Amino acid sequence: MTLNIIGIGLNDEKDITVKGLEAVKNSDFIYLETYTSKLQCSFEKLEKLYGKKIILADRELVEKKAEEILDKAKDKQVSFLVIGDALSATTHTDLMLRAKEQKIKVNIIHNASIITAVGITGLEIYKFGKITSIPFENENIKAPYEVLKKNQNAELHTLFLLDLHPDNNNFLTIPDAVNYLIKQGMKEYQMCVGCARLGSNNPTIIYAKASELIKKDFGKAPYCLIVPSKLHFMEEDVLEQYKK
Amino acid sequence: MTLNIIGIGLNDEKDITVKGLEAVKNSDFIYLETYTSKLQCSFEKLEKLYGKKIILADRELVEKKAEEILDKAKDKQVSFLVIGDALSATTHTDLMLRAKEQKIKVNIIHNASIITAVGITGLEIYKFGKITSIPFENENIKAPYEVLKKNQNAELHTLFLLDLHPDNNNFLTIPDAVNYLIKQGMKEYQMCVGCARLGSNNPTIIYAKASELIKKDFGKAPYCLIVPSKLHFMEEDVLEQYKK
Repeated sequence: MTLNIIGIGLNDEKDITVKGLEAVKNSDFIYLETYTSKLQCSFEKLEKLYGKKIILADRELVEKKAEEILDKAKDKQVSFLVIGDALSATTHTDLMLRAKEQKIKVNIIHNASIITAVGITGLEIYKFGKITSIPFENENIKAPYEVLKKNQNAELHTLFLLDLHPDNNNFLTIPDAVNYLIKQGMKEYQMCVGCARLGSNNPTIIYAKASELIKKDFGKAPYCLIVPSKLHFMEEDVLEQYKK
Repeated sequence: MTLNIIGIGLNDEKDITVKGLEAVKNSDFIYLETYTSKLQCSFEKLEKLYGKKIILADRELVEKKAEEILDKAKDKQVSFLVIGDALSATTHTDLMLRAKEQKIKVNIIHNASIITAVGITGLEIYKFGKITSIPFENENIKAPYEVLKKNQNAELHTLFLLDLHPDNNNFLTIPDAVNYLIKQGMKEYQMCVGCARLGSNNPTIIYAKASELIKKDFGKAPYCLIVPSKLHFMEEDVLEQYKK
């Protein structure tokens, strides 16, 4: 009948849109993708707001058992919930494509993403270059640092998403990420912005030299790191507030 | 007391989050920024859902009379609504900064943005380069085409936001934008993706050569244009669906 792919935002159960909540309440089956990001609230809180049971969908379920989800969507209302925006990962786009190929109606409901939530730092969204991720196993990985160098040459800011295994409560930290970049050749005096829990009402945002940032405590995940390039005075004015 | 800066999403009144709606319902004054984007529903529909009157805030009010908004926020609950995500324009960030300087509590509530809604095209968000805008008066403007060339050299997709004056219902169209790029030197056989009304349940998305795209009717605004770079097979698979 219908596959709703619904972004549920960044922080807690109330970040779902009114439209998304209506779709969830009308659904027969509700899957929550649990492996590309992490909410700041429990699954129980989601279930309470929805008045429905959630099926937690880890990487294996989504990638290998997508047919289970699609089979149900053939004659039922199925909602597939994604933390952040709806189509932020290849597996979600793949699910949309396969549903359409099977003539299942697909309904995309968008929501906030870390990619524009970084606007709270004062950095202009239009002045970011390519976004990249830093993986846990990064000893021999050059690519994220290469992205930084290219963005800096083009006077563009760089957003680094940090690897995570939410199932094991394991998150690459901001100091880990800064240390990786320093090992690759970034200067210790490079000003950076570390961000934790963006989208919540108590984010930690610190603007400091790399050598200082590695000593800071950011509290709970999720994390991201920004290495700004050339700043407009307005960007500087906002960043000044996050110097600690 | 509090200034809420609330993204209300891309399409209609039901794209506000549950958290955003609660904040609006608790507000004494509600401003809606009307000049950086356009919703697909009337202001009356917003007022009906909120159960409150909205004050429409054009560029002049927000940029020059921001003090009016901030004065009210000193001892009242004020919500400033932004189409898309909350901090997508310099004037919104400026409002946040000035409120904080005046010790007004600021509460940011995020929402969907065109920047990740383009995920529906199948193009990977992480493979986009710098985002740029094409203005109405573009005869002597080189910058957007320069951005395209740089992104293409780096094998990154380019998202063009198209100029708009929603107050006069005036929108730079996708054919206008493609013609601008062709005049600047883009090849007529360059494959492009034109998108209208992303975030709605009836977007028009067409993947075609530039020379074909300029003949297409996309229906109502808002519009954006993507010039993809090198494609992954999964990106190709999704784009194939939009060939018309």
